[in-house]
Amino acid sequence: MTFPTCLERLKQLAEARSSLLCVGLDPDPERLPESVPKSVAGIGDFLREIVEATREYAIAFKPNFAFFEALGPEGMSLLQALIKEIRAHTPVIGDAKRGDVGHTAERYAHALFEIYGCDAVTVTPYQGEDAVRPFLAHRDRLVFVLGLTSNPGASDFQLPNLFQDVVRKVRQWNDHGNAGLVVGATRSEQVREIRELSGPMPFLVPGVGAQGGSLEETLRDAEDGSGLPCLINASRSILYASSGTHYAAAAAHAAQGLQEQVSRARNRGSASV
Amino acid sequence: MTFPTCLERLKQLAEARSSLLCVGLDPDPERLPESVPKSVAGIGDFLREIVEATREYAIAFKPNFAFFEALGPEGMSLLQALIKEIRAHTPVIGDAKRGDVGHTAERYAHALFEIYGCDAVTVTPYQGEDAVRPFLAHRDRLVFVLGLTSNPGASDFQLPNLFQDVVRKVRQWNDHGNAGLVVGATRSEQVREIRELSGPMPFLVPGVGAQGGSLEETLRDAEDGSGLPCLINASRSILYASSGTHYAAAAAHAAQGLQEQVSRARNRGSASV
Repeated sequence: MTFPTCLERLKQLAEARSSLLCVGLDPDPERLPESVPKSVAGIGDFLREIVEATREYAIAFKPNFAFFEALGPEGMSLLQALIKEIRAHTPVIGDAKRGDVGHTAERYAHALFEIYGCDAVTVTPYQGEDAVRPFLAHRDRLVFVLGLTSNPGASDFQLPNLFQDVVRKVRQWNDHGNAGLVVGATRSEQVREIRELSGPMPFLVPGVGAQGGSLEETLRDAEDGSGLPCLINASRSILYASSGTHYAAAAAHAAQGLQEQVSRARNRGSASV
Repeated sequence: MTFPTCLERLKQLAEARSSLLCVGLDPDPERLPESVPKSVAGIGDFLREIVEATREYAIAFKPNFAFFEALGPEGMSLLQALIKEIRAHTPVIGDAKRGDVGHTAERYAHALFEIYGCDAVTVTPYQGEDAVRPFLAHRDRLVFVLGLTSNPGASDFQLPNLFQDVVRKVRQWNDHGNAGLVVGATRSEQVREIRELSGPMPFLVPGVGAQGGSLEETLRDAEDGSGLPCLINASRSILYASSGTHYAAAAAHAAQGLQEQVSRARNRGSASV
């Protein structure tokens, strides 16, 4: 008996939940609703409520390792427990952006996939092939390599040309069909170019909500005919949709809104083809 | 009363211990001496013995976060305890190669410097200025940005030109004088070029032992007149100097050998000036 790969599961959920939404889990102590205790247990309960409230609209959850690492070893225990709970119903993308030489990358891949149980991860390409391959060797998982990110600093090195080199290499390294790319939605001029260079593989697209990228353009330009052109990530606009006590309902409302926007944009896209 | 910065402490130790040696702590379960139990506690005892045996020859210890992360949350507790013990006598470089957008980088910096207590860290530059600045904002610590690394994959993106752009930018961002660079010793043709571009700042140089870089050339080309041109890192050649029961004595012997090599090479260098 074989189990579906992470990519297959995401495609099934994209169909079943009519969504491409990924909900980012960035528990920032300074932005938590006032009623949430600033303890590890309090943050855990908050995140569990958010997950329950939004899971019907999402095809993935993306915990950001930095925010758990900043809570100390206890935060890592929470992360481990949380991933185990979530992946019972929805795939988990470990947003850790690890990247190091071969034998160290192998340990990071082991940590993220086997110890913390992530279905997918984000990886930094600066150190090249031997830093990325140990992640890709986990064939049933998915590896999103940073291509062109949505932050201002992307223009320091990624632009004008480095991101193209990265995309070409990731395509070359994709022996098992489990590579993907992080592509910021604020880079709308480049999404189509990246798709042409990458061929079919999933994109993880941050920056649609708070950072102001256009959803419709991104979806159109990222289309690859696979049924899973990209995951649209939203973190803060869902997690902190309300600072009051009704934060879970507000998060559900924000997630549903984005899911509907994605669904409408995709329907318009296919109607126009 | 002001405390010495990490850079000042390293310079003092370089003088006092007549060394530039940094001992990397990469506890790989598959390479541990046979007599060491493969448990977190067993690994902890092993690392403490190595630290005690080598500290008189070293000016820094560099735990590699990947190997602790792969031991689960318990491994992170060990790492936290170990850093606290080591930094009482010797600065600790957290080799974590983190790198992410501004608000996430701020959390990683908090985790590494405040929660885990590192005196210095390694950082990946792919996401640019807003990914690096939150680390540099911790003025009393030291931030080694990946410049040109010693692994084969360095030729995928860093060469031929990207590493120069990174070095120039790091120099620009170095407002508080607490930036450094990771420069692989296997790149001997480029060490001098990087020094010319960087101006005075410490290099962290892996790849001298197991990876075959030349110590004498590296030290000559890295010289910046500061008394701390570079830290020479050795990990596996010290940690796994013996697989027998006398691993601590073997590690001390290997560390002393490197310390003497560094000392001789530097004396020859200054004699020839």
